[in-house]
Order: sequence, then C-alpha cells, then structure tokens
Amino acid sequence: MEQYESVLKLLLEAVQMNLSSTEKKQGVPEIPVGISNRHVHLSQADVNALFGEGYELSPMKDLSQPGQYACKETVTICGPKGAIEKVRVLGPVRSKTQVEVLLGDSFKLGVVAPTRLSGDLQGTPGITLIGTKGSVQITEGLVAAQRHIHMSCEDAKALEVQDGEIVSIEVDGLRGGIYHNVAIRANDTSVLEFHVDTEEANALGVHSLSKIKIKK
Amino acid sequence: MEQYESVLKLLLEAVQMNLSSTEKKQGVPEIPVGISNRHVHLSQADVNALFGEGYELSPMKDLSQPGQYACKETVTICGPKGAIEKVRVLGPVRSKTQVEVLLGDSFKLGVVAPTRLSGDLQGTPGITLIGTKGSVQITEGLVAAQRHIHMSCEDAKALEVQDGEIVSIEVDGLRGGIYHNVAIRANDTSVLEFHVDTEEANALGVHSLSKIKIKK
Repeated sequence: MEQYESVLKLLLEAVQMNLSSTEKKQGVPEIPVGISNRHVHLSQADVNALFGEGYELSPMKDLSQPGQYACKETVTICGPKGAIEKVRVLGPVRSKTQVEVLLGDSFKLGVVAPTRLSGDLQGTPGITLIGTKGSVQITEGLVAAQRHIHMSCEDAKALEVQDGEIVSIEVDGLRGGIYHNVAIRANDTSVLEFHVDTEEANALGVHSLSKIKIKK
Repeated sequence: MEQYESVLKLLLEAVQMNLSSTEKKQGVPEIPVGISNRHVHLSQADVNALFGEGYELSPMKDLSQPGQYACKETVTICGPKGAIEKVRVLGPVRSKTQVEVLLGDSFKLGVVAPTRLSGDLQGTPGITLIGTKGSVQITEGLVAAQRHIHMSCEDAKALEVQDGEIVSIEVDGLRGGIYHNVAIRANDTSVLEFHVDTEEANALGVHSLSKIKIKK
C-alpha cells in the first residue's frame, strides 16, 4: 500500500512537471472554452414583474466566472414570429435586463439580434419575456454575444494582450478554423475562458474540454 | 421614349463593363453561399418503407445544384435520447440513405454524428427514421456534413483549385473568420456554391446573399 502511494506520488509529480514544462515552452497558458446556450440576465424590476414582487432568484449551479450562477428559473422569450421556451436565467441580477440568443433564434423570434459585447445595449431591439407571474416587454436588450475571452490581468500579461483588445483565435481539427473579432475582457475578478455560443462552438467542433489559442 | 431606351442601354453596358472589370481585377469568380438545415437523402427501399410501397417523392422546390430538389415529404429522426420532427427529404432518391444533421442535433438525438463528406458513410452510426407509413432503422448514414464547395471544372480552373483539394475560406465582418478543411467538389454537373449548415453559417454571420473567398 505504501509502495502504491509512492508510485502515485511520483507519477503525479511527473505529470505536473510535464504540464509546467509544456506551459513554459509555449510561454502562454492554454485557454479553456465556455459554451453558452441562449440565456437571460434580469434586472430586479423585471424579476419582480416575471416572478412576483420581491422575488429572489434561486441559484442552481455556479458558472466558471466568480459570482455568476445559473438559476432554477427559466423564461419564455416571445417575438412577432415565435416563442422560445425554457430559456435559463443567469444570476445575480444586473442593472439592466439583457437577453442573449443564438443568431439562429433570430429567425424563430422574427427579430434580428445584433452581435454585441455584454452591456453594450444601446440601439438593440426589445423583446417580450414571460415568467410564472407575469410578462415584461423590454424596449432594448436583445443581443447575440460577441465572442470574447475573460481573463485576469495576470493572464493578459502572460498572453501579451490588453483589456479591450480585439484578437483572433484558432482551433485545430477537421472542423478547425479561425474566429476574428474576439474581444479581450481582462480584470481581476475574471477567470481565463473563451466564451462562444453553441452554434459557434459546433461550427468549429469545440466542446467544454477543448483548448484554444490566440493567433497573433 | 427612344432616348430613354438609349440611356438605359448605355447604363446597362456601363454596369456590365464594370462587373466584368471587377471580376477580371479579382481574377476569380465570387463564391455564393448555400446554407443547409438538417435533411435526409433516401434510398428507394427506405422511401417504400417510410411512405408506402412504390411511393414517389413529390418535388417541392429546386435546389441550386442541378437536378436536386426539396420534397414535400418530411421524416422524424429518432435517437436514444430524443427525436427531431419535420426533417426535410431531399430528392432524387440515392443508392444509400444519408441523414445530415447539425452537430447540435447530436446532443438531442444522443448519437454523435461524425463530420463526413457526402457519400462517405462507412463506419458512421445508424439512426431511426419515421415516415407516414412506417419506420426504418438504418445501420449507418448519420453524418454532419463536412464543409465543401461545389463547382464546375471551369470554376475550378478560374479559382486555381482541383477536385478533392482541401482549402480554407475566409469571411469578413464582425462575426468573420476562416474555416479550414473545406473540400473542393468539382465536376461538370455542379454549380459554384459554398455549402455550410445553419450553425456554421450563423457562427460566421453569413446568409444566402453572402459571398465568400478561398484563402490561399
């Protein structure tokens, strides 16, 4: 048993050494992939309208970005051409409601979602949301998320990029390719992760265990 | 009236000259985009099993590739995890049934569709199809289409590519990027068109009026 543990310890050290030497050789950390399906961020006023006055969202699962979580609550999104049910609410509440859909959802809803970075909602179209206790018609906030990479300031230094910079990323494989216009979002509360939606992930054949690299 | 026609003729000539000089300047034809949603090609034996003995598919709309058409008929695709209804049948019948889904459909169905070129079905998974008169369980034929460009041999010459060659294509715009491993399929019965599925089209923000270029 003791021997078994020694071997295990040696193996673990070897793996760790190998990992760190790989990182050192490449000089940059590998970037994990976070894949988002359609989802909504809600203001407290809209939470009240959708789920009842003073309602508090129920956290269900932590997301990789610190403090962010998927909630038990879902809403229905309704446009002039159709509705999409069971769209996950993400918490915590925000100052403004933001509805992030796939570009393909635009056709179902009958409203074209412009590609925007999170929070950049000026001039975006509105949409109707339906909850268990009521509905709200937001006048702006429907977007398709622009591809971006969250990271700490330390990661940004290692990756030789800056907050706000626009880069391209590359993925290998049969469905491999390059995405341009990927925004760097660096601050000290973020964890390194490339964010894409399900259509973008499927198009390049990446999944939750994939790693991508920035192409200079 | 005569003057009006003269002006029109002059204008038309100017436009045509401008178009041809643009083509000459670029040296290559522009490549239109054809976007496929999930669909099935059926063998006559499977048509019989799904819609009745001796049934003939009903053409509904011609596709851009000569002789190919969308049919009035649809089928339901069933996997161990779920079903997808109203999947369009494309005609004419083929020697083997081929079910082309989106990568995202793999999750709904519970079967991973490998990325393959049309006709390359060896070792691909099977799936169950349901029609109005019965169902068939195919033992292979479920694929996600590999990106490809159909073209005539003349187009291939102008684009300086060959049948079977693998190229990359580039798209501009906010969602722009590059797809690698795009197969050239050149023969004298094909019309120039870059084929992608809806996820791939949305990921790069291309639509039916977009043009793409081969990146050497």
